[in-house]
Amino acid sequence: MDFPSFRAQFPVLAERAYLNAGTCGPLPQAARDAHVAVLDRFTREGRGFDYFEVWKQARDGIRASYASILGAEPADVALTTGTSEGLVRVLTGLGLRPGDEILTAEREHPGLLGPLAAARRLLGVTVREVPLHAVAHAVGERTRLIACSHVSWTTGALAPEMPEGVPVLLDGAQGVGAVPIDVRTLRCDFYAGPGQKWLCGPDGLGMLWIAPGRLDELSTPGPTYVNLADPGAGLDAALASDASRHDAPAIAPETWLAAQAAFDVLAAVGWAHVHARSAALARTLADLLAAAGKTVAPRGATTLVSWEEDDPIAVRDRAAAAGVVIRDLPGTPYVRASTGAWNDDGDLERLVALL
Amino acid sequence: MDFPSFRAQFPVLAERAYLNAGTCGPLPQAARDAHVAVLDRFTREGRGFDYFEVWKQARDGIRASYASILGAEPADVALTTGTSEGLVRVLTGLGLRPGDEILTAEREHPGLLGPLAAARRLLGVTVREVPLHAVAHAVGERTRLIACSHVSWTTGALAPEMPEGVPVLLDGAQGVGAVPIDVRTLRCDFYAGPGQKWLCGPDGLGMLWIAPGRLDELSTPGPTYVNLADPGAGLDAALASDASRHDAPAIAPETWLAAQAAFDVLAAVGWAHVHARSAALARTLADLLAAAGKTVAPRGATTLVSWEEDDPIAVRDRAAAAGVVIRDLPGTPYVRASTGAWNDDGDLERLVALL
Repeated sequence: MDFPSFRAQFPVLAERAYLNAGTCGPLPQAARDAHVAVLDRFTREGRGFDYFEVWKQARDGIRASYASILGAEPADVALTTGTSEGLVRVLTGLGLRPGDEILTAEREHPGLLGPLAAARRLLGVTVREVPLHAVAHAVGERTRLIACSHVSWTTGALAPEMPEGVPVLLDGAQGVGAVPIDVRTLRCDFYAGPGQKWLCGPDGLGMLWIAPGRLDELSTPGPTYVNLADPGAGLDAALASDASRHDAPAIAPETWLAAQAAFDVLAAVGWAHVHARSAALARTLADLLAAAGKTVAPRGATTLVSWEEDDPIAVRDRAAAAGVVIRDLPGTPYVRASTGAWNDDGDLERLVALL
Repeated sequence: MDFPSFRAQFPVLAERAYLNAGTCGPLPQAARDAHVAVLDRFTREGRGFDYFEVWKQARDGIRASYASILGAEPADVALTTGTSEGLVRVLTGLGLRPGDEILTAEREHPGLLGPLAAARRLLGVTVREVPLHAVAHAVGERTRLIACSHVSWTTGALAPEMPEGVPVLLDGAQGVGAVPIDVRTLRCDFYAGPGQKWLCGPDGLGMLWIAPGRLDELSTPGPTYVNLADPGAGLDAALASDASRHDAPAIAPETWLAAQAAFDVLAAVGWAHVHARSAALARTLADLLAAAGKTVAPRGATTLVSWEEDDPIAVRDRAAAAGVVIRDLPGTPYVRASTGAWNDDGDLERLVALL
């Protein structure tokens, strides 16, 4: 597919320089259309037996798609409502005890800090924060889990190669669909990611990859209908034998099918191309900003570019008024832009021109 | 509003006798339209700052609406992905310990049985099942929680008046929007309900009412961005001061706004009228079935009618082929019909005629 045809599938790009996939990706027209088709059908037909057949197929399809982009088996991928839910499931399911330590990075997102704070308060674990680049070498005697970003949401830095011997949970909120991921070679045990950012799906879904050998170590406090191998067995019902025991209890089929349509738009041009193009655009943007005299935050080979501004909110709002969508990062001096394969040099130039 | 105009707002009723709100309610056209309007806007505009403003307003609006139908304050209502999530939050958050007993009813739904089984296995609590009508008088010395249906999903029976002195969690999957609920007089401490059944919203949302005096007893193992009073405070972030500390981490604004539109369709005709009409239709249906020689399950003043069939699945399928939507109940001899204020005598007659 030629680039103009690909780009034209994202209506927001007709007028705006949309550089905010780190919050939510641009919705392709096909995702909107798939969403509406499901709504229309079941508004007309009612949500009976057929609805659940569609639900099951949509679930299996998106699980396979999410697995494919992680280099994983579908059986090892749970379908969550988003990155945060996956992080919670791991932090609460590992049976951590008073005195255990979780090693994390400085400046993590509230989606990780919230359950870390709860683990400290409720489970009595210690949480130790070190710079992201130092995490791999900071494991101590009591460290029972490393839990940190795969890609830092504030700077776009990449996590270092992780050590063996201690379970690792990666927060992939800024990773999935943005950078190449292969859990067969990426050293981690749990990878939580979103469906609504670089995968361009609707809000309300994501995935949690669980290393097969860790599945039985991770308890699920609330298995419900969708997590049981035999829901009819009452109090003796067994858990599903795979990661679906951690599926979120209720996600609508229209959400999954919209996510699938968005995924397919990207998959059609090839993930290697998607990753290479979005990373190249981010590098170009970082160079343009540096050339314009901006202080760019130390970053990795990712799709985020953050730079310092005296008044980040004012810059965000000025950009918005000019049709350029970026964001500030509360508590930091940064404004952040996210690039995706759908962007072009014109988007970057519009941003740099207004700074 | 006259009845034909009200009924005409539910497209499925144009051709089908839709009697399956106990699974999912009929989607009103207005819910579909609200859903699509949000999708269209943010497909075009991108999901930036304005998106989150819409999200916040939608969240506050649906919380107030859900509160209103429960006789509750919005501050005491958490927005969940559905009934099951609320049940899990209570069963895992109360700090139950080995030797504690949960009293429940026979034939509960897997949405409650699943987390009950997990509580037994992970927390070491005992779970004792008695007939629903006997729950109130079966409290023992070790009973720390009663957890049962408000309305039985298999028979439509109502839970008895609950005793004082022990926390009560009601599974309101077949209650919310179906029968009058006022948590100021209904003896319970936690009420979990769905948004997609008699409230006719999309899948993927529901509510958990928490008695104000119980909020601090209920720990939240995974507070995330949306549950914190000050997400920027890192590991020291405090929980939200109200029930929103139990909000699900990620629900899309289009889901909430579709649910709001559906809610408004029903609220416009008045909840007292909605409840009275749907209960009267269920009584009529039970009488018609009895007159036709069917054995109707012992029921209460609810909107569910179950009756025995030799081959429930065959009856369900025969009904579906004739445009009548009902369901079987696996593991029971029953077929179940659900009535709502949108139904009319013609719907009931179509069902009875084919039996």
